[in-house]
Amino acid sequence: MESGKPFKILVLHGPNLNLLGLREPEIYGFKSLEEINDKLVEYGSKDNLRIQQSNHEGDLVDAIQGACGWADGLIINPGAYSHTSIAIRDAIVACAFPAVEVHLSNIFSRETFRHRSFIAPVCIGQISGFGWYSYILGLNALICHLGMYTK
Amino acid sequence: MESGKPFKILVLHGPNLNLLGLREPEIYGFKSLEEINDKLVEYGSKDNLRIQQSNHEGDLVDAIQGACGWADGLIINPGAYSHTSIAIRDAIVACAFPAVEVHLSNIFSRETFRHRSFIAPVCIGQISGFGWYSYILGLNALICHLGMYTK
Amino acid sequence: MESGKPFKILVLHGPNLNLLGLREPEIYGFKSLEEINDKLVEYGSKDNLRIQQSNHEGDLVDAIQGACGWADGLIINPGAYSHTSIAIRDAIVACAFPAVEVHLSNIFSRETFRHRSFIAPVCIGQISGFGWYSYILGLNALICHLGMYTK
Amino acid sequence: MESGKPFKILVLHGPNLNLLGLREPEIYGFKSLEEINDKLVEYGSKDNLRIQQSNHEGDLVDAIQGACGWADGLIINPGAYSHTSIAIRDAIVACAFPAVEVHLSNIFSRETFRHRSFIAPVCIGQISGFGWYSYILGLNALICHLGMYTK
Amino acid sequence: MESGKPFKILVLHGPNLNLLGLREPEIYGFKSLEEINDKLVEYGSKDNLRIQQSNHEGDLVDAIQGACGWADGLIINPGAYSHTSIAIRDAIVACAFPAVEVHLSNIFSRETFRHRSFIAPVCIGQISGFGWYSYILGLNALICHLGMYTK
Amino acid sequence: MESGKPFKILVLHGPNLNLLGLREPEIYGFKSLEEINDKLVEYGSKDNLRIQQSNHEGDLVDAIQGACGWADGLIINPGAYSHTSIAIRDAIVACAFPAVEVHLSNIFSRETFRHRSFIAPVCIGQISGFGWYSYILGLNALICHLGMYTK
Amino acid sequence: MESGKPFKILVLHGPNLNLLGLREPEIYGFKSLEEINDKLVEYGSKDNLRIQQSNHEGDLVDAIQGACGWADGLIINPGAYSHTSIAIRDAIVACAFPAVEVHLSNIFSRETFRHRSFIAPVCIGQISGFGWYSYILGLNALICHLGMYTK
Amino acid sequence: MESGKPFKILVLHGPNLNLLGLREPEIYGFKSLEEINDKLVEYGSKDNLRIQQSNHEGDLVDAIQGACGWADGLIINPGAYSHTSIAIRDAIVACAFPAVEVHLSNIFSRETFRHRSFIAPVCIGQISGFGWYSYILGLNALICHLGMYTK
Amino acid sequence: MESGKPFKILVLHGPNLNLLGLREPEIYGFKSLEEINDKLVEYGSKDNLRIQQSNHEGDLVDAIQGACGWADGLIINPGAYSHTSIAIRDAIVACAFPAVEVHLSNIFSRETFRHRSFIAPVCIGQISGFGWYSYILGLNALICHLGMYTK
Amino acid sequence: MESGKPFKILVLHGPNLNLLGLREPEIYGFKSLEEINDKLVEYGSKDNLRIQQSNHEGDLVDAIQGACGWADGLIINPGAYSHTSIAIRDAIVACAFPAVEVHLSNIFSRETFRHRSFIAPVCIGQISGFGWYSYILGLNALICHLGMYTK
Amino acid sequence: MESGKPFKILVLHGPNLNLLGLREPEIYGFKSLEEINDKLVEYGSKDNLRIQQSNHEGDLVDAIQGACGWADGLIINPGAYSHTSIAIRDAIVACAFPAVEVHLSNIFSRETFRHRSFIAPVCIGQISGFGWYSYILGLNALICHLGMYTK
Amino acid sequence: MESGKPFKILVLHGPNLNLLGLREPEIYGFKSLEEINDKLVEYGSKDNLRIQQSNHEGDLVDAIQGACGWADGLIINPGAYSHTSIAIRDAIVACAFPAVEVHLSNIFSRETFRHRSFIAPVCIGQISGFGWYSYILGLNALICHLGMYTK
Repeated sequence: MESGKPFKILVLHGPNLNLLGLREPEIYGFKSLEEINDKLVEYGSKDNLRIQQSNHEGDLVDAIQGACGWADGLIINPGAYSHTSIAIRDAIVACAFPAVEVHLSNIFSRETFRHRSFIAPVCIGQISGFGWYSYILGLNALICHLGMYTK
Repeated sequence: MESGKPFKILVLHGPNLNLLGLREPEIYGFKSLEEINDKLVEYGSKDNLRIQQSNHEGDLVDAIQGACGWADGLIINPGAYSHTSIAIRDAIVACAFPAVEVHLSNIFSRETFRHRSFIAPVCIGQISGFGWYSYILGLNALICHLGMYTK
Repeated sequence: MESGKPFKILVLHGPNLNLLGLREPEIYGFKSLEEINDKLVEYGSKDNLRIQQSNHEGDLVDAIQGACGWADGLIINPGAYSHTSIAIRDAIVACAFPAVEVHLSNIFSRETFRHRSFIAPVCIGQISGFGWYSYILGLNALICHLGMYTK
Repeated sequence: MESGKPFKILVLHGPNLNLLGLREPEIYGFKSLEEINDKLVEYGSKDNLRIQQSNHEGDLVDAIQGACGWADGLIINPGAYSHTSIAIRDAIVACAFPAVEVHLSNIFSRETFRHRSFIAPVCIGQISGFGWYSYILGLNALICHLGMYTK
Repeated sequence: MESGKPFKILVLHGPNLNLLGLREPEIYGFKSLEEINDKLVEYGSKDNLRIQQSNHEGDLVDAIQGACGWADGLIINPGAYSHTSIAIRDAIVACAFPAVEVHLSNIFSRETFRHRSFIAPVCIGQISGFGWYSYILGLNALICHLGMYTK
Repeated sequence: MESGKPFKILVLHGPNLNLLGLREPEIYGFKSLEEINDKLVEYGSKDNLRIQQSNHEGDLVDAIQGACGWADGLIINPGAYSHTSIAIRDAIVACAFPAVEVHLSNIFSRETFRHRSFIAPVCIGQISGFGWYSYILGLNALICHLGMYTK
Repeated sequence: MESGKPFKILVLHGPNLNLLGLREPEIYGFKSLEEINDKLVEYGSKDNLRIQQSNHEGDLVDAIQGACGWADGLIINPGAYSHTSIAIRDAIVACAFPAVEVHLSNIFSRETFRHRSFIAPVCIGQISGFGWYSYILGLNALICHLGMYTK
Repeated sequence: MESGKPFKILVLHGPNLNLLGLREPEIYGFKSLEEINDKLVEYGSKDNLRIQQSNHEGDLVDAIQGACGWADGLIINPGAYSHTSIAIRDAIVACAFPAVEVHLSNIFSRETFRHRSFIAPVCIGQISGFGWYSYILGLNALICHLGMYTK
Repeated sequence: MESGKPFKILVLHGPNLNLLGLREPEIYGFKSLEEINDKLVEYGSKDNLRIQQSNHEGDLVDAIQGACGWADGLIINPGAYSHTSIAIRDAIVACAFPAVEVHLSNIFSRETFRHRSFIAPVCIGQISGFGWYSYILGLNALICHLGMYTK
Repeated sequence: MESGKPFKILVLHGPNLNLLGLREPEIYGFKSLEEINDKLVEYGSKDNLRIQQSNHEGDLVDAIQGACGWADGLIINPGAYSHTSIAIRDAIVACAFPAVEVHLSNIFSRETFRHRSFIAPVCIGQISGFGWYSYILGLNALICHLGMYTK
Repeated sequence: MESGKPFKILVLHGPNLNLLGLREPEIYGFKSLEEINDKLVEYGSKDNLRIQQSNHEGDLVDAIQGACGWADGLIINPGAYSHTSIAIRDAIVACAFPAVEVHLSNIFSRETFRHRSFIAPVCIGQISGFGWYSYILGLNALICHLGMYTK
Repeated sequence: MESGKPFKILVLHGPNLNLLGLREPEIYGFKSLEEINDKLVEYGSKDNLRIQQSNHEGDLVDAIQGACGWADGLIINPGAYSHTSIAIRDAIVACAFPAVEVHLSNIFSRETFRHRSFIAPVCIGQISGFGWYSYILGLNALICHLGMYTK
């Protein structure tokens, strides 16, 4: 899993994730978004992370496009847009960098409309249910993938 | 229905509602959005109303989040986003203030895709079909609810 | 909302509503049907209310028909028949007076089979989720509607 | 089509058919139920007709059961109950006399929920769309059927 | 039901109806198509009948078009094409003469795919289940209809 | 299974069950309703049974409500209303006594629309397929249940 | 219900039923499988019971086949395989002895995928919701059935 | 197709179309958005084109509203929002100018969720599959339409 | 769009299109099929057009097959067969020339069963809603496509 | 499998099968229809084969009817009509000779709409996926079946 | 169809097929499994057949895996597992030898849940409906396929 | 993520996973199951791993049950049984230890029937798409979870 040169990775947080720690902690956990970001930076210390959050579908599309050419990969928690946004899906396909979808909660034990993700089929893989640690796992998985396929 | 202290209420108008009075008046009525806002302010005179309109799903999410901690309750006409936005639903749940969904037209006598609301299940209730007066009823209902449960 | 002459309004309570106050108060509230009726009469004091309850689909159809020619409008809480009765729908259409559907509970946060109403599409509008106050809102909305369109 | 002895036939009119002539004449025609009954009696003059109308599903079941042993056949316009009543279906099967389902309007050019009849599959046949004349055709068809199979 | 001048009526038999009398008589009866045609001619003696049968969807469309301008109305038993042909439906709408759909068997007590007719919604009405007598009823109904609306 | 004091039990027979013994004996068996009632009384001799039959959905709702406060439990064969009545379901929930749904025939080997019961989910359990003996089993089960939970 | 000679009955417990008493007692009750077996043996004392449990679909098929020729009837709690196994269904049909499906919990008040049983349509009947007592009721019902039809 | 005065036309490009030429050229072609815009301006030279692109659903709604009163018609490639946006649909209906929906790729030979457009039903027509040339065809069609109906 | 040598193009009109100008002009426009054909010949003057119309699905299949080897491309308005014919689809695939599907009316604003085309997925693209001008656009698109890919 | 007297067998090839060898050989194989027919004649040499191909649904119905009374059995590859033709199904049932449905390609590994055959349920059996050899297997199976049941 | 060297073929019989001859002979025929195996050995005499039966899904997976490397092809009658087993499907794909699915009965004229096979899409082809002879046809087809593609 | 005492963890591999490295490496990767197991042991070195593979649904149920009381948690790749096994789901719920579902391939980019897992809703979370590394991530996640909740 060791990798010589740092990877450039975009981390995207979707709608309402800025409320983390405040919002339904029994579902989403007690860590704030800032704390999760700190964890990510710490974990991926020797890599180059660009982290953004937005409640706007269009901003997420913009952010993905803006990382085209720069980023080696994408960690995305699309939140509610997982289930409704084809635009984000198309942006990921267009930019063609490997992406990992992560979810704090286990989307399969929630409402039926959260079981389908438009994003997952165009990612390498999906990780859901491990709270803030889903991000760490996702970053781990992405770096491992990049280490195997990009070097 | 009497209440001692003024309630702080966020009123959100969703997409295309800025066109009210111009747009399909046989469906939506002849009052402009400004006139409806005047009616709301007049009705809830002793209360504290913050009123916003946006055509952007993300703006509506932002507005709800922005009222967390300030607002006692929410009146929302999500318009077209009623039927497509899980992000707005999640924002309402996250902020945990009581919400009332209102619609100008009777959504149940229109196209099938307007029969389902992602927002209604996380509100106290839903009022649809009474034109601009749906807002007044909604405000009335919300104040009544707040009077019973918040004091 | 002022109106010169009193309106003649039929108020119909569907099945099991005679148990109000006894039945699942955490869902339907603590007011008995009699208390709700008192509230309605008080609210619509200068109007002429005829109030009926029945557990029989056919009785509700009979009551609607019986008010043809007499009533200016209808407040109906069809209860369980909202989701199964086309006969009540047809009666409302046949009598052609404006109707308002009300529900004590928020039908959209309950079982899926309660999300569809056969009645709502032939009413002016629907109000659900505000407990006994849904009736007051409905009466308010109906009188307002009659004031605008009937005078 | 000639038949020696008079047939005993039950004619059942379902919910809201007592309003005929008053109710949506552009759909259901201008003849009152009484006029239709007169037409039926005139047409089936040498036969023995028992005619009933009810808005109650249970009454229709009772009426069918009450004609067991007496009636040779049944003409039924179940109205709205066509689409919702399994009880009426079961009563027809239980009594085992030949039945003909008739409809004034063409149910196939109306709302989707009117396209399915629980009653039709247990009848000899179904006739819909010819206004009051559907009854005459139904009576004609039933007498013809009885003439062939009962004598 | 009396009518002064003779009506010009197209009678169309769909696929496999040329086998009548031979084919599954327990479902379709024992009369041959020729015998049914004789019955129709006898019944509508003072009217002008053009009778055609084809196993080809396109032939049925051609026949309907060919009767445009000549026919006052149409009796059609589309057989299997009831459930699969939008082309025949469009031809009937295009020619704009009143049509009656008839079926020998009760299509509602057979396979599910026979319950839906593309043709019925664009006809005056539908008659099914009375064997060859469905045609006589249909002709009767059509003449009655023409007598009321065309004269 | 022994119980000291007699239980008060309401036994409800739904539509068409008054025809038992006459109606399709190959499906429903040869015992009349009266004979089944005798069996029930005999079986539950030391208990207090109130037995009612009705073809009316509303009557069944009335009967359930009427037994509130009196009955310790309910045996109900809702017949056709199993598949269409939410009103009966609501009545059972409202009265909150334990209920057992019984069916003479095996509803799972019949038409698809008989496979779904609105009643079963709010009962302790369901027993179907054992003819008149389903009632005895149901009474046995109910008494056993009451013996365990009520004493 | 008296029967001269002892019946030979196979009792089959499906997957995870060996955990009874340990597993989710609030759903499945506190009795262990051994205790239930004791109850069954006690109840059917003068009969000949062969009792087996397996977590393997194939074992259950084998067991049913192995009882062909020996058993007079079958009590089966297919557990999770109720909803997924056509193989067990086919085995029951092949062996052609009368079967009774039992469930500890009320499968109709649980997840939707538990509402459909592949087994029920090929059994005499189904009993669900009465905890370990469902088995006793099932055995009772089977013996009663055998008493009527086998002697 | 000649038209005297220049038409004022809004051209809207939806999400990810700013990546054209870069993104999956085997699906979307090799022309950049700028080149397509040049083609449009060249084709509609004597007309007045306002061209906008956005990845934000709300921006597209704003743009449509902003052109109310100014534009004679609309060319829109809603991209991914075709399949998810009711808000854009409502904006088009509200502004009431004729619209043409265009797609670069043939949406009917792609994933099922791309087969349904919320936009198409409120447009004059839809053109899909001809790469950048779909825009030229759309502009052609719109100008032709305006030439016929607006002059 | 200039092309040196003339293209050989088959133009196919499906069922009922021979009635154009007569049939529902508010939907299909006032031009007859002959006038449309004249327009097509005029537009594609330097090309070689073979134009056929048929009400028969099989004729359309024959015509496509008959143009194999001769035609460079196909313009097809399959009319009602768009929604029901897999045979025409297979013929287009078999002959492997580029095809453009055109529709006079906007099929997406009509009945649901007209929203699905079996033909569109095997064409280059689809154009619908522009009346007779859909054909001109289609021919334009096809020639453009051929100019790019065939030369 | 030996049979004394020759069987008379109709072999029907549906739409587009006349293109075999030319059309998508990677799916349908390289043999022309003529070569397949030669194989069939060779295989069934001592039997009496009548072989027809048509692109017209009606022709296939005609051909089946035309073989009534002559043919002992039918080999049919209905091609695209497998999935859309109830008329062909009805013809096979009407003529009541044993039929075998064959397909060159494995229809279950192709588009979903090819998975359902209206024809298969009224045949003895179905064979799909073995290229031209499916016909030989089908003929083999039919002759074997005829040998067992017809002699 | 001649082949020089013997093929090594695995023949798998799924659940309940060991009961053949005993089980519902009107559906599955009168031959025992042993007799079918004899027929297979006789037919494929010069080939090398390994024949197994199991009621266990896992055994069938094991058997397929166990034949990897040894077998040239597979004949499988998955019985009930056709409709429920993805594990068997995956095993066939994993081992990558050509497979033929066979069924004794015509699965398309039985219950709807038997119409879908998880296995068929990953086989060369499927043969159903010819009783024990389906196996012979399948073996014939497989050997023919192997002769063409393997040599 | 440090944890004092070793965790006892059951690792279960479902059907066909014993073929890893051999089976479709472009989907499942090139590592054999043994190599994956080595990686797991290496990763979780200070923990106590019990690793099993089976092609039998029942074996997987047995293994889960067998680890009740011993294991602190479960890593399970249910393979094909993810989509069909309720029995495994029930076993996990019964044993009540935390479970993590892992998949080698991204199940959301494969056939639709692989999108639904019966197992995921009863696990902490699901990880899919990272090849053999999914297991390492799963083990990591489980240990992290146990570290937080068990100590």
